[in-house]
Amino acid sequence: ACGSTCRCPSICATVVAASERDDMKTKILAAEDMAELIRAVGRDRLMDHMLDALRVRFREHDDDTVEVRARDGFRYDKPALGLVEWMPTHEAGGPVVVKMVGYHPTNPVQRSLPSVIATSSMWDTESGHLVAIADATLLTALRTGAASGIATDLLARRGPVTVGVVGLGAQAVTQVHAISRVRPIEQIIAVDTDAEVAASFAARIGFLGVSVDIAGPERSATILGDVDVLCTCTSVDIGADPVVADVATRPGLHVNAVGADFPGKLELPRSLAERAWVVPDILAQCVVEGECQQVPIDRIAPSLSELVQQPDIAARRRDEITVFDSTGWAVEDDVALRLAVELAETHGVGTDIELEHLPSDPYDPYSTRFGH
Amino acid sequence: ACGSTCRCPSICATVVAASERDDMKTKILAAEDMAELIRAVGRDRLMDHMLDALRVRFREHDDDTVEVRARDGFRYDKPALGLVEWMPTHEAGGPVVVKMVGYHPTNPVQRSLPSVIATSSMWDTESGHLVAIADATLLTALRTGAASGIATDLLARRGPVTVGVVGLGAQAVTQVHAISRVRPIEQIIAVDTDAEVAASFAARIGFLGVSVDIAGPERSATILGDVDVLCTCTSVDIGADPVVADVATRPGLHVNAVGADFPGKLELPRSLAERAWVVPDILAQCVVEGECQQVPIDRIAPSLSELVQQPDIAARRRDEITVFDSTGWAVEDDVALRLAVELAETHGVGTDIELEHLPSDPYDPYSTRFGH
Repeated sequence: ACGSTCRCPSICATVVAASERDDMKTKILAAEDMAELIRAVGRDRLMDHMLDALRVRFREHDDDTVEVRARDGFRYDKPALGLVEWMPTHEAGGPVVVKMVGYHPTNPVQRSLPSVIATSSMWDTESGHLVAIADATLLTALRTGAASGIATDLLARRGPVTVGVVGLGAQAVTQVHAISRVRPIEQIIAVDTDAEVAASFAARIGFLGVSVDIAGPERSATILGDVDVLCTCTSVDIGADPVVADVATRPGLHVNAVGADFPGKLELPRSLAERAWVVPDILAQCVVEGECQQVPIDRIAPSLSELVQQPDIAARRRDEITVFDSTGWAVEDDVALRLAVELAETHGVGTDIELEHLPSDPYDPYSTRFGH
Repeated sequence: ACGSTCRCPSICATVVAASERDDMKTKILAAEDMAELIRAVGRDRLMDHMLDALRVRFREHDDDTVEVRARDGFRYDKPALGLVEWMPTHEAGGPVVVKMVGYHPTNPVQRSLPSVIATSSMWDTESGHLVAIADATLLTALRTGAASGIATDLLARRGPVTVGVVGLGAQAVTQVHAISRVRPIEQIIAVDTDAEVAASFAARIGFLGVSVDIAGPERSATILGDVDVLCTCTSVDIGADPVVADVATRPGLHVNAVGADFPGKLELPRSLAERAWVVPDILAQCVVEGECQQVPIDRIAPSLSELVQQPDIAARRRDEITVFDSTGWAVEDDVALRLAVELAETHGVGTDIELEHLPSDPYDPYSTRFGH
């Protein structure tokens, strides 16, 4: 491989070893693989797996052994309003996982694409090899739903609940689905400013078999008083009015606020945020771009992972108004990717390819293992 | 696709449009594709393409229209000493490109892998779609070589040159190769602390047809006085001694310092850095982790892209000692990926796959276009 002029037996021995490498494949979990996982595992079991995997990881989470970089990215308004961001995390001794996520709110209407499109990748920290790359569009919807499911399970009142949803896009489906896995849902009250989006929601969550009351934006004025659990998952503009009006609420109302993800972007009325007990997914991010921007510091609760570790603290707050401030935590994406890889292996899904050009001689970038 | 219960013709029209999407493929340029590009294009023309593409981009570069995030990453010493980093860049109105790079100095000896393993990805900023993902292991070696080639062309004396190389790993091959495309090389003097690595270097650059003088580490004491162009591309330890001794140099010595890439990591003697005219690839990064750490501010020259824009300024310094402080600029990786995609299209190389799970209904993450 290093040529007939090579007179170095020990380097050649290394080269032979290189030609015997067989574990340097990258697993690709592509669109069709994700569709196959939905089919093979089933929607409900897929969500249950995600709930379980997140719970386990939250319970074991230790800030000292997991590095999470603040989400960072490029934001722009041309050619379309949007952003591409990266969410890197590294568990000590374990892999590096980076989710790359695009958020383009005009996607559904203008391009028939979801507003969130994402991929997640995993690198081993022994060699820097890319172990897997997967669609994370489905995984993001699943893990965002599951995080709200865990929060709802900890903080909402027990027994059957009426669920309100404001903002009926893709995230709304997995929000309600996840809640249905932790509480019986009696009724859903669903609100969107876009009548077309609202009109399809009942069909999209038809698989739950729950009665859905679809309402126009005027319902935002009263919905807060009529539900036990509220999910806000809107693309509200920065500086715009809250997506619901503050009214007298049922005892123990729990809110999952999913849409705020940018400085100045807020979904909830300040008066509600101020009297609620607000649980951040990750405090440092929530005070910058979540509902915690408008919450007095003494009303900010332990994080969701801390509550999973100490559920009694959460249980004591079940009769209060609680808010889960979900800005999206990179650790959730790490969990989601690992789960997808595990399920893919179980179900024989995915493709292993040699992505990285690893030369036959590590010291010669032009050398290849593909017969030249 | 949205089911028989759907009573909304306009949403269904959108869904039909989604099923007609055909441009949401992700181009994969994998290991075999890179090998095929080397074969089809040829090593020399590949390097010439990279030199040309970088020159064009450097000439057009405008800090106001390109956002480059500081390289960031996770560094660790278990399970192996190494790091995984990301290098994001965004040209206004154009794509986002992120190179993910692993650097694990024990790779060649312990795993028969290159110390640098990288992939580059490109997102469109209209929808956030992942347009391409490519091996960047080869591209990194090529662009790092080409950047030094451009610097050498601008700053080294004209006519045939003697080239010194200290550190004979993968980067050394493309350093010397790139220089050979901008200057006739009379002789190469090559030094490594590892006799086995040194022993294979002549074979690895045998394709240049240039006489190579392989020497042991003792040659570091004098090499600076015997060459017109020096490339340092070592994995020197943080805080270690310089990789060459400072001695009287030939007039107009040009140095490409490629190995420093970490705070405290330096390859050149301070006395040399202090009397040279030091050209950073990107100043903000070079003062943190490049040779510019030890260069007085008044000896730091315009950046390489500025010199490409104003070559007269460089030409006036040709008789001085000049250093190109190459820490690796994300814009170079952007150029390299775009070139690879372009060449792949020309040569019919690469595979287009549907990587992202883009649902048939953008508002329903569980909907798929894969028949169920």
